[in-house]
Amino acid sequence: MKRNLAEYNFPEDLKNMSGEELELLSYAIRDFLVDKISLTGGHLASNLGVVELTIALHRFYDCPKDKIIWDVGHQSYVHKILTGRANRFDTLRQTGGMSGFPKSGESEYDAYDTGHSSTSLSAAAGMAAARDIKNEDYNVVAVIGDGSLTGGMAYEALNNIGASKSKVIVILNDNGMSISRNIGGISKHLGKLRTSNKYLDAKKNIKENISRIPAVGEGLAKGLSGAKDWLKYALLSGGVMFEELGFTYLGPIDGNDIPSVLGILEQAQNVRGPVFIHVMTKKGKGYRNAELNPNKYHGIGPFDPETGAEKFPAGVTSSKVMGETLVKLADDDDRIVAITAAMGTATGLAEFAEKYPKRYFDVGIAEAHAVTFAAGLAKSDMKPLVAIYSSFLQRAYDQIVEDVCLQNLPVVFAIDRAGLVGADGETHHGLLDISYLSSIPNLTILSPSDGNDLKAMLSYAFSLNSPVAIRYPRGNCDYDENREETFNGRNVRLSSGKDVDIWAVGSMLKRAEKAKELLELRGIHAGVVSVRTIKPIDMSVISSNCRNIVTIEDGTALGGFGEKLSALVPASIKVTNFGWPDKFIEHGSCDDLYKLYKLDGESIAERISDRFEGKA
Amino acid sequence: MKRNLAEYNFPEDLKNMSGEELELLSYAIRDFLVDKISLTGGHLASNLGVVELTIALHRFYDCPKDKIIWDVGHQSYVHKILTGRANRFDTLRQTGGMSGFPKSGESEYDAYDTGHSSTSLSAAAGMAAARDIKNEDYNVVAVIGDGSLTGGMAYEALNNIGASKSKVIVILNDNGMSISRNIGGISKHLGKLRTSNKYLDAKKNIKENISRIPAVGEGLAKGLSGAKDWLKYALLSGGVMFEELGFTYLGPIDGNDIPSVLGILEQAQNVRGPVFIHVMTKKGKGYRNAELNPNKYHGIGPFDPETGAEKFPAGVTSSKVMGETLVKLADDDDRIVAITAAMGTATGLAEFAEKYPKRYFDVGIAEAHAVTFAAGLAKSDMKPLVAIYSSFLQRAYDQIVEDVCLQNLPVVFAIDRAGLVGADGETHHGLLDISYLSSIPNLTILSPSDGNDLKAMLSYAFSLNSPVAIRYPRGNCDYDENREETFNGRNVRLSSGKDVDIWAVGSMLKRAEKAKELLELRGIHAGVVSVRTIKPIDMSVISSNCRNIVTIEDGTALGGFGEKLSALVPASIKVTNFGWPDKFIEHGSCDDLYKLYKLDGESIAERISDRFEGKA
Repeated sequence: MKRNLAEYNFPEDLKNMSGEELELLSYAIRDFLVDKISLTGGHLASNLGVVELTIALHRFYDCPKDKIIWDVGHQSYVHKILTGRANRFDTLRQTGGMSGFPKSGESEYDAYDTGHSSTSLSAAAGMAAARDIKNEDYNVVAVIGDGSLTGGMAYEALNNIGASKSKVIVILNDNGMSISRNIGGISKHLGKLRTSNKYLDAKKNIKENISRIPAVGEGLAKGLSGAKDWLKYALLSGGVMFEELGFTYLGPIDGNDIPSVLGILEQAQNVRGPVFIHVMTKKGKGYRNAELNPNKYHGIGPFDPETGAEKFPAGVTSSKVMGETLVKLADDDDRIVAITAAMGTATGLAEFAEKYPKRYFDVGIAEAHAVTFAAGLAKSDMKPLVAIYSSFLQRAYDQIVEDVCLQNLPVVFAIDRAGLVGADGETHHGLLDISYLSSIPNLTILSPSDGNDLKAMLSYAFSLNSPVAIRYPRGNCDYDENREETFNGRNVRLSSGKDVDIWAVGSMLKRAEKAKELLELRGIHAGVVSVRTIKPIDMSVISSNCRNIVTIEDGTALGGFGEKLSALVPASIKVTNFGWPDKFIEHGSCDDLYKLYKLDGESIAERISDRFEGKA
Repeated sequence: MKRNLAEYNFPEDLKNMSGEELELLSYAIRDFLVDKISLTGGHLASNLGVVELTIALHRFYDCPKDKIIWDVGHQSYVHKILTGRANRFDTLRQTGGMSGFPKSGESEYDAYDTGHSSTSLSAAAGMAAARDIKNEDYNVVAVIGDGSLTGGMAYEALNNIGASKSKVIVILNDNGMSISRNIGGISKHLGKLRTSNKYLDAKKNIKENISRIPAVGEGLAKGLSGAKDWLKYALLSGGVMFEELGFTYLGPIDGNDIPSVLGILEQAQNVRGPVFIHVMTKKGKGYRNAELNPNKYHGIGPFDPETGAEKFPAGVTSSKVMGETLVKLADDDDRIVAITAAMGTATGLAEFAEKYPKRYFDVGIAEAHAVTFAAGLAKSDMKPLVAIYSSFLQRAYDQIVEDVCLQNLPVVFAIDRAGLVGADGETHHGLLDISYLSSIPNLTILSPSDGNDLKAMLSYAFSLNSPVAIRYPRGNCDYDENREETFNGRNVRLSSGKDVDIWAVGSMLKRAEKAKELLELRGIHAGVVSVRTIKPIDMSVISSNCRNIVTIEDGTALGGFGEKLSALVPASIKVTNFGWPDKFIEHGSCDDLYKLYKLDGESIAERISDRFEGKA
């Protein structure tokens, strides 16, 4: 073994390593992951779980000719180590550094960019179809977790792959949990298979019985599609669902055992048509803290590798304020129910779930269902809150339009992680929600400037008898639990200034205040408006004395709040919109990115004063 | 029997009718449907298929206390007849008339509004959850077609209902086709069950065999979850998939036989937890033309009931131009492939499918998968075109963002039915696409003014190496096949006018030309710009002489092209945006609706001249 993982020439070096060396490598990789992620933060538990699986994949397949698609993609760190990127882990998820997700721009070994769940099978189906049309010869492999398999589009893809007979190799990485607990029938179904010994005993038993009574066996099968199919049903128990869809089902096997994985990949190679390989792994494996609490170590900030303690303990997050407020509101109103899509803990709903289990629904990774399910609840006089991250809510755009807003149903959307999220990057920033939500009729869109606002807005939202979206950012917020804020749907003017009014949407308020302060030093007098209602636009606080408005928002400028305000103000007022530019914003620290894109307080002040000085 | 269906007091009268009377009623309803729909147009074949099923449902259940949710909803005509609306069928889908879909605003018997596919199970799950929380007692029944069952969110819902153990009654109306052919594994799976006799023989056979060898039967089952489960696997063949998900599976039965349906509803009543009832019906049943060609009679305009001929034969539709052009382009470029989601014929792809079957993919009702599948193809150097209606493409918003545009892949979206669609109403108008697409980075958005434009744009779109969306309206377009148009990505100035420039997006051009003509008569000189590229905005044709711009677009004004243009023009030019207002637009004839919302040529002229005369 070399001393440093970066010294290897992976993946080539894997091809010549002995079984023992491969196993030693798995230990080295685990140490490396804990060392590195403890410094940078990142997705730890899922990567610890797939060490052996990834080693086996790169030992067996010939990448980049063969294509491996990582569903969601946050479990691709081992893959990155084994494709020449061990030396870049100090920069993982840092500004300008290596992404925490597969990026074809980063490496030819990253066959397809992922970030949102359940897309890998569809992408693999497309790549396999292209291969077949061009009569080319390589493997297309999708690695998908059992959590991602609850997403409807995974099923749409299974359905189509099964029917197509195209050779797609689906590896189900079954670790019994997604971001939080895995919910639903499919999960229970896989659960049955996890009792592997029992399963194997049954298999043995049946085989023996059948062989003793062949004539009866044939009789049983008559009329069905043949003894072989019948045997499949009897033998494969849960796997039958995938067989029904047209796959050859292999497994389950221990995915943390390299020889087992290599063996089943070999088997899969000999199968014609689509294959479904069921591999069981342990999330967090090898790092005791993560094994015991894989949820905590799913995505974690920097931590002490010895104790497992996060180095920067959390302050009060918006999610926490939302969750606590919801519990209080639910104490007084038993029509309030909460729905999430595998983001219960992260969106602050743990306490609600604990206190009101019958009024709490985690539907698994299934945003579209979550929203229409909420519509059904609202249609039956309940008051549902749907807590989903901004970028994942994109999955339910049609359902927000057609199920909730068209019927004008009182569903409250708690849109967490709206705006910039930082280290998770392109696929996770919530920069589009204002644009895609604000053209939907009947929807009220709110954005709190701080935790107290958020609390007041939740009460307000439940008091309306129509759909409401509240968007608030990831991470800590200013919150004074002794201060009771009220909210009446109006925007708030905090100060007046003769030169320019800064209309700051939601949490951009603090940057507006900073800009105002700096502009003052340059002799430019700015007023500040706290925009709390994005739609319908509240113009009551507009000043007739101020000829310049600058809007700032934590979303893409194109189609954002600013443009809509511009369309409403009198021609005598010049409106300038500051928001994120029309490009996908990379990962990095939020502070760095706000500066880079000139959306921090200092830059805003500078951009405004440049305008006054005729520079822009 | 009464002479007129409107004379009955349905659904109450159903409760007292004899079996024979119910059967006679089914004939009367079929005659009624053919008579009425031949005059108004509408969804014929699917309604003819569910006559007996719907009679049985309203005979058996106690609505509106019991809730019936019609997936998609275009098969709800019989339901409307049986809930007091027979007298409104002359106004079906007409301006101000009865909707072709369930609308709670129209009747308390319409428990939930539908229009887009695959939502009924999620809505039913929500309604059942509300019922359970409130300890109320009524039935929640979702009726879903086998086509809709290919949509991922139906699976997300099945998954959750199965796990919840809540009593939801799912009725699978299996008629072997969705809007066009039904594709995918689930479809094949159901196909197996359709061989009902064979299935029943097998069942009998197995039962006999098992009863003769009880000891062996027990032996076989040992180690699995019990003899009962094992028997289910053996006996229920395809139904096993639904059983696996946690449902009690009943059927299949003949859904065109009232006593059979009543019998199975009775059985379902005695089951605890979720039930999956498999009912087989014949689409178009009882009207020979529709039985022979259910696709044609799925959604049809007015027709001659005797011959079945549509009264207003189609001219050249945009869909036809798209399809023909695509074939020509594909003749010269074997990397071009086409994908649709059960809208192959309707989007003009029939000829392509016929000529290039290996390059044609109808993925079933699965828009999200369709888009990511296309991304996979594009990633492997193919040139996919995805043809989906504007309002259904909303289902794939996240995939357009994350899979196609983030990777900047050359996928061409042929967005049919963009803008107003008319008789199908709220759920089918394509009024949001400009708003939701134009804030996505990397995406070019085009909109042809006529068929020749569309043809030229398709060539142009395939020449770009990045994602392109082309949006064009439903129905006929101006098209001169002898004229060869070219397109270079630019907007086109057609005329200049000193008073006002009308920037007309896509097919609104003809209304702009009309308005110009009328304004001329009032002494107002208008210029006309044909906006063919919505994004990126081409400002090269802006006139420095004209101080007024009016934009007109066939989409919601909020977040539309006009707002984005407004943000770019110099402050010296006043921009006014005309588009659809911020509300859901009802059904009706397009001509009526353009007039009603003042977006026809005459109204546009009037609105502009009002501004010049200071009235607005």
